[in-house]
Amino acid sequence: MSHLLRQQIEKITPLSDGEFDYILSHFKPKKFKKHQFLIQEGNEVPNDFFVLEGCVKAYHVSNDGKEHILQFGLQDWWICDFNAYFNQAKATLNVDCIEDTEVLCLSLYHREKLCSEMHKIEHFFRRKSNAGYVALQQRILSMLNNNPQERYLQLLELNPILFQKVPKKLIASYLGVSRETLSRFGS
Amino acid sequence: MSHLLRQQIEKITPLSDGEFDYILSHFKPKKFKKHQFLIQEGNEVPNDFFVLEGCVKAYHVSNDGKEHILQFGLQDWWICDFNAYFNQAKATLNVDCIEDTEVLCLSLYHREKLCSEMHKIEHFFRRKSNAGYVALQQRILSMLNNNPQERYLQLLELNPILFQKVPKKLIASYLGVSRETLSRFGS
Repeated sequence: MSHLLRQQIEKITPLSDGEFDYILSHFKPKKFKKHQFLIQEGNEVPNDFFVLEGCVKAYHVSNDGKEHILQFGLQDWWICDFNAYFNQAKATLNVDCIEDTEVLCLSLYHREKLCSEMHKIEHFFRRKSNAGYVALQQRILSMLNNNPQERYLQLLELNPILFQKVPKKLIASYLGVSRETLSRFGS
Repeated sequence: MSHLLRQQIEKITPLSDGEFDYILSHFKPKKFKKHQFLIQEGNEVPNDFFVLEGCVKAYHVSNDGKEHILQFGLQDWWICDFNAYFNQAKATLNVDCIEDTEVLCLSLYHREKLCSEMHKIEHFFRRKSNAGYVALQQRILSMLNNNPQERYLQLLELNPILFQKVPKKLIASYLGVSRETLSRFGS
């Protein structure tokens, strides 16, 4: 499955077989069962995760016990508590598995090592980070600007596969609406 | 004022005088008057802006004519419609001046040229982009998780200088509340 990582990098910069093998040697594969945690609030976050297979969710639990879903992670996506990871702080998010999931783990040490040794990998991660920034900016605009039904339709258009993988109540939590409201959108 | 740019880069990576002069030669200084636009919806976005002095706001105007402020830009901050800039698309945001403003402009061509020529600049921009990503993730969490008064106090704590520079009705727009609601928070 690690060819998915190579494909993603090669969308931005070409790699020789030797280069890819070297990059891959910095990742550690790991398997998780449904409901298992990749990241748990209050713990350290040594790894960023590249999803090879499965589906996870990143969420925050507020004081009243409500889950606020920040992001889903599907095949080919990166997912982490980036604040904790980059700043070596304790996690404020949880990431757990919606189904059995297989990932590649990249520690901050190995990420920075690769970026400093290989200019093209620093370029790859800069481009990914820019794209992630743009996606979050679009999400904030959508939260400020669109009603829940518009946000639902936008999500459906951008990520139709989510609607096959993810229970409706989790989609509702991501959109910040009740399950009842969501069902009125024809889901 | 361009020493501000050097200071910011040197927080991440040291530069020789020659290196900084070379980097700076890729930027174009520009001055704007209060109310002037740096970016206008529907136009192309050739430049990212590093604010040397002044104060700007980035916002979207919804169909009902309401301004939704996405971000402010103060001294030492970068501001742009990054979606339009990176993807060479038309702007969906406006950026205009809350007071007279001086910026350094960096075209996408010059940014990519610098990043490909100087590994340390690619490193700088990756680190900035990561930090920007984390800040937006925190903002989304705060929108999902906190009530308007909590968001107001958070903004006050993170950016006290905003409250000296920016009219209260713009702070209200950024927080997504009415001016009247804001005044109840003791502003």
